[in-house]
Amino acid sequence: MPRIQELEIYHNRLPRGPLNAITDVPGVAVGHETLITGNGTWQPGRGPFRTGVTVVLPHQDNLYAEKVPAAVHTINGFGKVTGFEQVRELGRLETPIALTGTLNVPRVADALISLAIEQNPHIGVGFAETGRKGYASVNPVVGETSDGFLSDIQARPIGENEVRTAVSQATTGPVSEGVVGAGTGTSCFGWKGGIGTASRVLPVQNGSFTIGALVQSNYGSPEELTIAGVPVGQHIQPPQQAKRAEDGSIMIVLATNAPLNGRQLGRLCRRAAFGLARTGSTCHGGSGDFVIAFSTAYRLPDQPKTLVVERPFLDEQPIMSSLALAVIEAVEEAIYNSLFMAHTVVGRDGNTRYALPVDEVVAVMRQYGR
Amino acid sequence: MPRIQELEIYHNRLPRGPLNAITDVPGVAVGHETLITGNGTWQPGRGPFRTGVTVVLPHQDNLYAEKVPAAVHTINGFGKVTGFEQVRELGRLETPIALTGTLNVPRVADALISLAIEQNPHIGVGFAETGRKGYASVNPVVGETSDGFLSDIQARPIGENEVRTAVSQATTGPVSEGVVGAGTGTSCFGWKGGIGTASRVLPVQNGSFTIGALVQSNYGSPEELTIAGVPVGQHIQPPQQAKRAEDGSIMIVLATNAPLNGRQLGRLCRRAAFGLARTGSTCHGGSGDFVIAFSTAYRLPDQPKTLVVERPFLDEQPIMSSLALAVIEAVEEAIYNSLFMAHTVVGRDGNTRYALPVDEVVAVMRQYGR
Amino acid sequence: MPRIQELEIYHNRLPRGPLNAITDVPGVAVGHETLITGNGTWQPGRGPFRTGVTVVLPHQDNLYAEKVPAAVHTINGFGKVTGFEQVRELGRLETPIALTGTLNVPRVADALISLAIEQNPHIGVGFAETGRKGYASVNPVVGETSDGFLSDIQARPIGENEVRTAVSQATTGPVSEGVVGAGTGTSCFGWKGGIGTASRVLPVQNGSFTIGALVQSNYGSPEELTIAGVPVGQHIQPPQQAKRAEDGSIMIVLATNAPLNGRQLGRLCRRAAFGLARTGSTCHGGSGDFVIAFSTAYRLPDQPKTLVVERPFLDEQPIMSSLALAVIEAVEEAIYNSLFMAHTVVGRDGNTRYALPVDEVVAVMRQYGR
Amino acid sequence: MPRIQELEIYHNRLPRGPLNAITDVPGVAVGHETLITGNGTWQPGRGPFRTGVTVVLPHQDNLYAEKVPAAVHTINGFGKVTGFEQVRELGRLETPIALTGTLNVPRVADALISLAIEQNPHIGVGFAETGRKGYASVNPVVGETSDGFLSDIQARPIGENEVRTAVSQATTGPVSEGVVGAGTGTSCFGWKGGIGTASRVLPVQNGSFTIGALVQSNYGSPEELTIAGVPVGQHIQPPQQAKRAEDGSIMIVLATNAPLNGRQLGRLCRRAAFGLARTGSTCHGGSGDFVIAFSTAYRLPDQPKTLVVERPFLDEQPIMSSLALAVIEAVEEAIYNSLFMAHTVVGRDGNTRYALPVDEVVAVMRQYGR
Repeated sequence: MPRIQELEIYHNRLPRGPLNAITDVPGVAVGHETLITGNGTWQPGRGPFRTGVTVVLPHQDNLYAEKVPAAVHTINGFGKVTGFEQVRELGRLETPIALTGTLNVPRVADALISLAIEQNPHIGVGFAETGRKGYASVNPVVGETSDGFLSDIQARPIGENEVRTAVSQATTGPVSEGVVGAGTGTSCFGWKGGIGTASRVLPVQNGSFTIGALVQSNYGSPEELTIAGVPVGQHIQPPQQAKRAEDGSIMIVLATNAPLNGRQLGRLCRRAAFGLARTGSTCHGGSGDFVIAFSTAYRLPDQPKTLVVERPFLDEQPIMSSLALAVIEAVEEAIYNSLFMAHTVVGRDGNTRYALPVDEVVAVMRQYGR
Repeated sequence: MPRIQELEIYHNRLPRGPLNAITDVPGVAVGHETLITGNGTWQPGRGPFRTGVTVVLPHQDNLYAEKVPAAVHTINGFGKVTGFEQVRELGRLETPIALTGTLNVPRVADALISLAIEQNPHIGVGFAETGRKGYASVNPVVGETSDGFLSDIQARPIGENEVRTAVSQATTGPVSEGVVGAGTGTSCFGWKGGIGTASRVLPVQNGSFTIGALVQSNYGSPEELTIAGVPVGQHIQPPQQAKRAEDGSIMIVLATNAPLNGRQLGRLCRRAAFGLARTGSTCHGGSGDFVIAFSTAYRLPDQPKTLVVERPFLDEQPIMSSLALAVIEAVEEAIYNSLFMAHTVVGRDGNTRYALPVDEVVAVMRQYGR
Repeated sequence: MPRIQELEIYHNRLPRGPLNAITDVPGVAVGHETLITGNGTWQPGRGPFRTGVTVVLPHQDNLYAEKVPAAVHTINGFGKVTGFEQVRELGRLETPIALTGTLNVPRVADALISLAIEQNPHIGVGFAETGRKGYASVNPVVGETSDGFLSDIQARPIGENEVRTAVSQATTGPVSEGVVGAGTGTSCFGWKGGIGTASRVLPVQNGSFTIGALVQSNYGSPEELTIAGVPVGQHIQPPQQAKRAEDGSIMIVLATNAPLNGRQLGRLCRRAAFGLARTGSTCHGGSGDFVIAFSTAYRLPDQPKTLVVERPFLDEQPIMSSLALAVIEAVEEAIYNSLFMAHTVVGRDGNTRYALPVDEVVAVMRQYGR
Repeated sequence: MPRIQELEIYHNRLPRGPLNAITDVPGVAVGHETLITGNGTWQPGRGPFRTGVTVVLPHQDNLYAEKVPAAVHTINGFGKVTGFEQVRELGRLETPIALTGTLNVPRVADALISLAIEQNPHIGVGFAETGRKGYASVNPVVGETSDGFLSDIQARPIGENEVRTAVSQATTGPVSEGVVGAGTGTSCFGWKGGIGTASRVLPVQNGSFTIGALVQSNYGSPEELTIAGVPVGQHIQPPQQAKRAEDGSIMIVLATNAPLNGRQLGRLCRRAAFGLARTGSTCHGGSGDFVIAFSTAYRLPDQPKTLVVERPFLDEQPIMSSLALAVIEAVEEAIYNSLFMAHTVVGRDGNTRYALPVDEVVAVMRQYGR
C-alpha cells in the first residue's frame, strides 16, 4: 500500500516534511493501540471488536506540568468530543490528545485522568497542603468517530490499559497509518478509512515552520470521493452498498512548531475544513467534524515562577495565507493517506469495508489527465 | 435549616412556583445519589468520600427517543463538562443532565451511555439493520464542580450504580437541597455549599410560564458572600481559613415550560451570570461556570415521522426581560438555598466545611435594614 | 458570456432551480446599482470609480415590520461587515442585505437606516407615544469586499441615492451577474470577479425546498483557481501579474424557502466554506469571508399580536446532508458564474482585470477529461 | 455633583488609580463632543438634539500603524455596534473606539475611516504601488446606545466634524462624566445616565497592573437600581414615569496596561457583566450590552519588520481572579459615576431625565446601614 506521494497523482504546492507526518513537528509523538478480536455475529457488549485508540503527544515530558498552547474548532458538532470548553477558555492543552470510537470517549478520558494523576499525584490536593491554588483537576481531551459498522460499540472496550499502551508506545518517528489505533474500524466514502498523516514546511521567508496533520477519517458517501480534484467516486464504488452509512465524522489534529497562541491556532483550525472539502466532503448533518491544534514552540508551566516572561511572538498576519495553505494541503493529504494505507477489514456480522483499490484509482486519475 | 424564603430577608419581584424548585416545571424530575464513606486521613484512591451525583430529567419517558430543546453556555470555561458541542449544534438534549464531582465526569458519562443503550438497544446498529440512518450514538451531558477539599477525587467513585440509582429515584416533587448528590462535597464562599433550587412564574400577560433553576454551588471567597445585596462575607467568616480554596465553580441548570428553541434558551443561559453575580461571585479565574437550559414545551422525536410539523412558536422578544428576571432571581435564590440548606460536613483529613450560620446571617441582614 | 451550466463542464448532483439564481426562492428580489465613472490616474477621493451596491430582499413588503429568520457566519473575519451581532442574538433580519465595496459600508448602512425610517416613521419614537416598547432602532446588515485595485475606495461614493436605486430596482426574476452592483470592481483569482448566483432544489422526499446563493467574489491567487476539480489556475494565468493582490474576500448570501430558524440557518452558513473550497480558495489570512442566510418560509412581525403562534417546524437533521449539498453546490456554481459572466474592466491608473477566457478554460478542462 | 468615591457609600476591595478613570492606564486618552441644540417639539430629522460622541484612544500615535491587542464581547446582542468581526479574528484594534447614539453609528464609522485615511494615505493602495500586501482597509470600531427619549435620532447628527473634534480634544487626564459626549442623551434606571469611568490597581504581587473602565450607561428600569447592594430603586423613583422606556443598553470599554492578548482580554470582557449585574441590571431583552477591551502593554505594527519578536507574556491564570475583581469593581463604579455625575436634561418634546438625587440616595443607603 503506497502513500499518495509515491503515486505522483497529487500535486502539492508546499513541500512535505521529511516523514510527511505530524511527527515532522519536532517532539511530537504518536502512539496507537489496536483492538481486533472476535468474528461473526454481533453480540452486543461482547464483540466482535475492530476499534482502538490513537494518542498524539505534543512532547514526551510531563504535559500536565508543561502545557502547550492549543485551540479547538467545531466544523459540525454532531459528536461527543470532550475537553473543548477548557481549551477554548485557557488556550492550552494539558493531556495527550486521544482519538477513539465514539462511545469509548468517557473511558478513554477516564484513562487520561489516571495517567495524569500517576505523573502528578498532587491532583486533587488543596493549596494548604501543596502551596498551590485550588484543588488541581485535569482536562482530558478526547476525540472520536463511530466505528459501529465493523465493531461492537456498545461494549466500549477501550479503557485504561489500551490508553496506557498507546501512550507508552508513542514515538516521534514515522506514523503507522490506515487500520490502526482509532482508525481500526472507521469508514471513509464507503471504503475502509482510518488514520492518516501528512506535513508541510513553510518557505524560509515565512519562517520554515512545519505544520503536521493527523486524521481519523470516517465520513463521506461513495459518490463524493474526490482525489486531487478528480471525481473518483463517480467511477469506483465499493461493494456491499446496501449497508453503507451516509453519515460519519472526522477528527483532525494539527501540530506546528510556529509560536502561535490560542487565537492564532484557532485560525489554523478553521482552515482545516478547506482541506476536508477538497476530498469531496459535503459536511453531512450527522457528522462530528472537529479540529484540535497545538504549538510546540513554547511551554506553559502549570506553576509559573514569574508573572511575566519574554516569549517569541509571531504576528501571523503576514504569513497567514502560507499557514493556511500548509494546513489545507496537510489535512487533504492526510485523508488520502488514511484511505490509501488502509486494508480491507471484515467486522461484526461479516460487515466489510474494502480497501480503496489503488490501481483503479490511479487508472481513473489518468483518464482525468493526472 | 430554613430555605431563604422562610426568613423574609430576600425580596423577590416575581412570584415563586408552588415548590420553589426546578420541579415546578411540569414533568421535570430530580434524583440524587449521595456517597459518604470513610473518615480521617486521605488515602488517594480509597477515600474518604463526600461526593455524589444529581440528575435532572426533562421528562421521565425515553429521553433519547423524545429529545427536548436545549442550550448550553460557558461563563468561565475552566471546567470539564461534557456533551456541550452537540447541544450547541443541534439545540437538543437526549440524556438526563448529570452533575457530579470533577473527575467523576467520564464515569458518569459512561453510565449515561449504558442507561441509554438499555432503553434504546439499537444504539450502534446501522441503518440496513434498522431502517435508520447512520449508527446511532448518544450524547451524554455531564457537569461538574470539584469536591476535592472534602473528598478523595482521585478515586472517581461515582459510576454506573450511582447514576442508575439517581435516575431511578428521580421524582417530580420537592427537591432535596444542601448536602446531597452532587452537592455532597462542595464549598461555597468558604462555607458548605451544595444543591439548591428555586423557581419563578411569569405574569399571565407574559404567558404564565415557569422558570426553574437548580445549582451545584462550589465557588467564591468568604469575603465575597453577598445575600440580597448585603455584604455578609464582610462580617461572617468561616473557621479554618488556612485551608480555604479560592477557586471553585458552579453548575446551573435551567428548565422552562415556555416553548423556546435552542437560540432562545441560549438567551436564558446568558442571564444566569446576572443571578450568580448578585451572590457576590467575581467569576474567579479557576472557576468552571456553566449553564444548561431546556424546555419541556415540546419534544423532538429521534425518528420524526414527517418532515415538517406545526409547533408552538414563542417570539421571545416581548417577554424577554421578564424571562431574564425570572432566570436571574431563580438562580440567585437557588444559590442561597444551596447554602442555607447545607449542614456542616467533615471530610478527608478532617477538612471541614461549616454550615452557614443562619442566625448570624439574619442578624447581619437586620443591621443592613432587611 | 455563458453561465457555466451552458458549457457542460460542471456536473451537479442536485437539480438547479428554473433561473439557477437566488431568486428561485419565491419572493426573493435582487437589485444592483453600478457606478462606473472616470478613467486614468487615481485621484484619491475623486475617482475613477468601479464600484456599486447589490441588495438582496427576502421579500418586497416592509421588511422591518415583517422580519425573516436569519443567521450569519464568519469564515475568516478580516472584514468590515456590519449588523452581525443583532442577527446572532435575535436570529432575524430586518433590512435588505446590502453588499458593496469595503469602505462604503458605513454610508450604505446609513442609507438602509434612511429607507427603514421612511417606511417606519415610528423608528426613534418611544412607547408612550406609540404603545411600543423601547425606542425602535433598526439593524442594517451590510457586507463588503474591497474593489481597491480598480476603484478609488477612499472616496466612498456609494450612499443613499445608490442604495435607494438598487432597492427600488430589485426584482424577483433573473439576476444580472458579473460586472454589476457590488461586483463592479472586484477580482477573483487574479481575473475579473463579481456577482454570481445559482440555486438547487431538494428532492421531493426532502421537501422540494429551494436553496439559492448569491456571491460577491473577490479572493484567490491565480494559481489556485480550480473549476470542477480541474486546476485551471495551473494552466491559465491572467496578464498584469505584477499588480496582483493576494488577499481578498467573499460575501455569500444564502436564501431558502425551507422553514429553518436561526440555529438551523447557521448550519447552512457553515457549509458555505465547503463550496468556496471547491473553487480553490485557501482562505487567505487577509480575506473577509462571511455568510448570511435567511428563510422566507415565515415572517416574524415586529409587533406580534399574540405571544405564541403555531408555525411550521422542520427537524433539519434528516435532510441536513441534502441541505448541505445544496448549499455547497449553489455556492460553488455561483462563484463560477461570477467569473464566467464578468467582462474585462479597466480601472484606476489603468489597472485591468481581465475576463476569464472561457474558451481557454474549456480547453483546459477537456485536457482533464471533462 | 460628587463622584461616588467622595460619598463613602461604596466599599471597594481593590484600590483606585489616581484619577479613578480609564485614563489611569498610561497613554489612554478620552475625548468627547457634545451636541445640545434645539428645544421643544420633535421635528423628525431636525432636532432637538441631545447626543454626542465619546472616543477612547489606546495611545495618541498613529493607531492604524501601531495597533494594540484587543477583544470584544457581546452580553446581549440587541445592538448596532460595528467592527466586532475583525477584532475577534485578529485580536487587535486599529482605530479609536467611538461611542455614540444608535443610529449615528454608520456616520461615526465613516468619520473614523476618514481620519484613518488622513493619517495613512496608502489605505486603498495596492502592493505593487507600496510594497504592501493587499489593498489596505481599516476597521472602525463603534459602539452605541439609544438616546431617543431625549434626542431626535432619525437625523443622525453626529458625523465627521464631531468625531474629529472629539479625537482632537482627547486627553490623558481626568475624564468628563455624566451629560457629555455619547452620554448626553442616555438614560439609566429611569434617571439621567451618561458617561462614567473608574479604575482599579492590582496588588504588587499581581503586577500592579491598572484596569480602567468607561461606560455609556443607558439601561434599566427604575425599580431595579441597586447601589452597593442597596435596592435604591425600591425607594426612589424618577418623576415622569409614564414615558419611561424599559429597554436600554450599555457600552463598556476596558483598558489595561497588563500585557494581555486577545484571548486573555476576552476573559476580562466576560467579567464586565458581573459589574453590570451589581447595579441591578437584569439584562433586558432589548438591551445591546457590549464590551470592548484593549491592552496598552505593547503595540502591533501594521507592517512588522520581523516575523517573530520577543514580547512580554503574562500567564493570566494566577492573577485572573484579581483581574476579574478589578474589572467588576471598575465597571460597577463607572456606572455609579455615570449616574451621580449626570445633571437633569430636558430634551425633545419636553421629555426630561432627572438627575439621580444624590442626597436621597445617601439617605436610603444610610437606612440600609451604609
